Amino acid sequence: MPDLAKLLWPDSVAIVGASSDTRGLRGRIVQIMRSHPYRGAVYPVSRSEAEVQGLKAYKSVADLPPTDLAALIIPARFVPQELESCGRAGIKAAIILSSGFAEEKGETGPALQREIQAIAKKYDMAVSGPNGEGFTNTAAALCPTFSPAMDPGEVALLPPAERTRGQVAVISQSGGMGYAFFDHGRPKELSFRYIVTTGNEACLEASDFAEFIIDEGKTAAILMLIEDLKNPATFERAAGKALRNGIPLIVNRLGASEAGTRAIAAHTAARGDDAAIRALFRKYGVIESNDLDAMVDIAAAFIAMGTRLPAGKRVAIASSSGGGGAWVADACALAGLDMPLLDDATRAQIDAYLPSYGCSQNPVDVTAQAIHERGYAEFARLAAESPNVDGVILVVTGRHPRFLLEDRAHLMALGRDTKKPVLLWSYTRPAAVCIDLLSEAGLPLFTNVHNCARAMRVMADYRAARDAARKE
Amino acid sequence: MPDLAKLLWPDSVAIVGASSDTRGLRGRIVQIMRSHPYRGAVYPVSRSEAEVQGLKAYKSVADLPPTDLAALIIPARFVPQELESCGRAGIKAAIILSSGFAEEKGETGPALQREIQAIAKKYDMAVSGPNGEGFTNTAAALCPTFSPAMDPGEVALLPPAERTRGQVAVISQSGGMGYAFFDHGRPKELSFRYIVTTGNEACLEASDFAEFIIDEGKTAAILMLIEDLKNPATFERAAGKALRNGIPLIVNRLGASEAGTRAIAAHTAARGDDAAIRALFRKYGVIESNDLDAMVDIAAAFIAMGTRLPAGKRVAIASSSGGGGAWVADACALAGLDMPLLDDATRAQIDAYLPSYGCSQNPVDVTAQAIHERGYAEFARLAAESPNVDGVILVVTGRHPRFLLEDRAHLMALGRDTKKPVLLWSYTRPAAVCIDLLSEAGLPLFTNVHNCARAMRVMADYRAARDAARKE
Repeated sequence: MPDLAKLLWPDSVAIVGASSDTRGLRGRIVQIMRSHPYRGAVYPVSRSEAEVQGLKAYKSVADLPPTDLAALIIPARFVPQELESCGRAGIKAAIILSSGFAEEKGETGPALQREIQAIAKKYDMAVSGPNGEGFTNTAAALCPTFSPAMDPGEVALLPPAERTRGQVAVISQSGGMGYAFFDHGRPKELSFRYIVTTGNEACLEASDFAEFIIDEGKTAAILMLIEDLKNPATFERAAGKALRNGIPLIVNRLGASEAGTRAIAAHTAARGDDAAIRALFRKYGVIESNDLDAMVDIAAAFIAMGTRLPAGKRVAIASSSGGGGAWVADACALAGLDMPLLDDATRAQIDAYLPSYGCSQNPVDVTAQAIHERGYAEFARLAAESPNVDGVILVVTGRHPRFLLEDRAHLMALGRDTKKPVLLWSYTRPAAVCIDLLSEAGLPLFTNVHNCARAMRVMADYRAARDAARKE
Repeated sequence: MPDLAKLLWPDSVAIVGASSDTRGLRGRIVQIMRSHPYRGAVYPVSRSEAEVQGLKAYKSVADLPPTDLAALIIPARFVPQELESCGRAGIKAAIILSSGFAEEKGETGPALQREIQAIAKKYDMAVSGPNGEGFTNTAAALCPTFSPAMDPGEVALLPPAERTRGQVAVISQSGGMGYAFFDHGRPKELSFRYIVTTGNEACLEASDFAEFIIDEGKTAAILMLIEDLKNPATFERAAGKALRNGIPLIVNRLGASEAGTRAIAAHTAARGDDAAIRALFRKYGVIESNDLDAMVDIAAAFIAMGTRLPAGKRVAIASSSGGGGAWVADACALAGLDMPLLDDATRAQIDAYLPSYGCSQNPVDVTAQAIHERGYAEFARLAAESPNVDGVILVVTGRHPRFLLEDRAHLMALGRDTKKPVLLWSYTRPAAVCIDLLSEAGLPLFTNVHNCARAMRVMADYRAARDAARKE
């Protein structure tokens, strides 16, 4: 097995095919690499340019100083010879961002892909791609990719440390979709450790990266977008480790539809055995979702709650909006959650705070008036203490930050002290300060009610799967 | 039948219970009313203040000049006597924002609600509420509500006229959820004509408002959040008119779950006969959804496409991301759409633009390279011309505006000239300039792939329902 550490944690990176022209992908990858504070060496390799974007360029791979990783972004027909040069130069890891391999019509592309496989095997190289979009290692500030999502923008790669309870990794065959997870998750203050795109997976596949990341032990949840599981045994080994370590795998396997399968065949030339894979997923508590936003939200909920997963499927709902409470109740029912009445002792405590038109059954119709007087957190705390429930969904409006900000101390205490999961749904688009506050409090904030209910459900299922695995 | 025009289009509004204290709801409603350029008269009624927020206040309803609409925001026990005063003063419309009626435990609240019903009947008054959150008429800049969504903010109530192809109305029993539709839709440049919240519906119900809005003929789609249909006959009349006029009703009826029903009973004291209502919905092509974002997106798609609805369920997908194409194909399959191969003539035209690793079957894997060279619009235009499909879903990345902005002229032409619906899914969060551009082009932009596929499906179903109704 080649060494993935050389690929994901290189001390030096050669960009084979680097260019000064930042309008093209060969220039963009250098520009993006340079815009992040990666502390290793970056070596452009260019036949035509002596200097690329301020960096000394090398005529060929053979001229390079000792190098850990080569990123190849050159026409497909030149890839085998350059990869061979890398092998000869002692480079032990490569990512191939070029297209035109097994996904191509005709014989040439697939033949080129087989050449890559042979070279990787010959030199025991860790090779990712071809037809990938590179990867990102945020801890190393390393971004050998042309993804626009890694453009240095107004947003830092990582949220502030005080808002980070754990990190997520993305492993995706599709480059565009892989970075789309980051694009959707970063504004929610989700902290990404890796985004790895694997393309055609001629050599390394998503499961190999998953196993490395699980073994490394620094990632709390993994988002995977899979078009094919080439070696189910590798996936099974990774999934088993993940479950034992309490790292949820949240997976969308594309190709559920005939047209989807057709698209995949054209895209990364993948195929799969559906029934066997589904059985594997069930066995290892793999969380399946086909909604990008839901996947991001589920990962965020797991990370915020850590080991505080629901012991069952019984949920209390507390809402300042009566309609909002009914809506989330419907969503919970659809997600297969139960909403029993709260016990009398808890109801009495809640009733003491409510006006006459409030209601403490379940959903708890807290009323806007009681929120004005007591804030949100106290109602979630009380509901969570009911022995009748395993978790709480708190309905808030995050548009106007006043009530959440005034309740800051209680929300921080709730996030720290709660033993049962507390998920928040904001039926209005939350203000940035509310996202920051709740992120710091470690309370997952949802803007889609179904994602919120579904997160509670899959957390309960995951805990059950984990407990079952431990008993074996 | 009382005159809803007096309620929704008053020349003068009295705020009974108005206050100078803008920390409370009785002050907020005046503040919000005053912050929008409503051209009618606003008369605060206050027992204790001679002037409220710069407006002359009246001691009692009896002292008022002739007034069209009274907004009552006073403790529940005073509502009947003040409503009676309104009736005696010749005021023909009232909205009651107070809580503490049929939704309250015990006998007092329900009895007060019956009193309201009797007074409304006696004076033939148009009465909305109680326990509502008021309404908004954007054309009149009239906002008798305390909803924070109507706070004068950075965003105008209406998008610019050049981006408006039609307007949507919201009718919701729940105030918080009613205004949440605006909160979610306005940033997508959806233009709202009315947001009406009906609360307990002691007198007027959502269907009455729907019928008025349909008869008025200025609204292209209606979003409804219903907890109960008290008079199915009224709903049936409204739904029949809506279908004949091609105004889709997009409805979430809360209470699908037992806990949801419980929440509703506590909230607005509503009940309903499920089977009969579902049959009504089917008969009149009512579009059901339980997802707020999806409802907003579906309304936006109908408004952008107007009469250009899909003649069937066959969709072409064109994507610059192979993984994105596969993802949308899966979503389309889930939504019950078909994705046949494109015809040979169309494929030949598309193939002429594609690199060797692209693919013109369906999904069309356009490849990033071809998008760089040709832009997005041309591929949607070509795909739409295939006789094998009824509509097109175009997968774009809206995060970096360059490719959409450079393609502006073609996108505008596509939105204007296409005879089949073209929906766009951006797998990255779109930049504001992209939202503006596509809104101006009249091309619906989705950020959630399932909402996109579902919109195409319900548009096809709606067209079929409309065609069937016309044949009868």
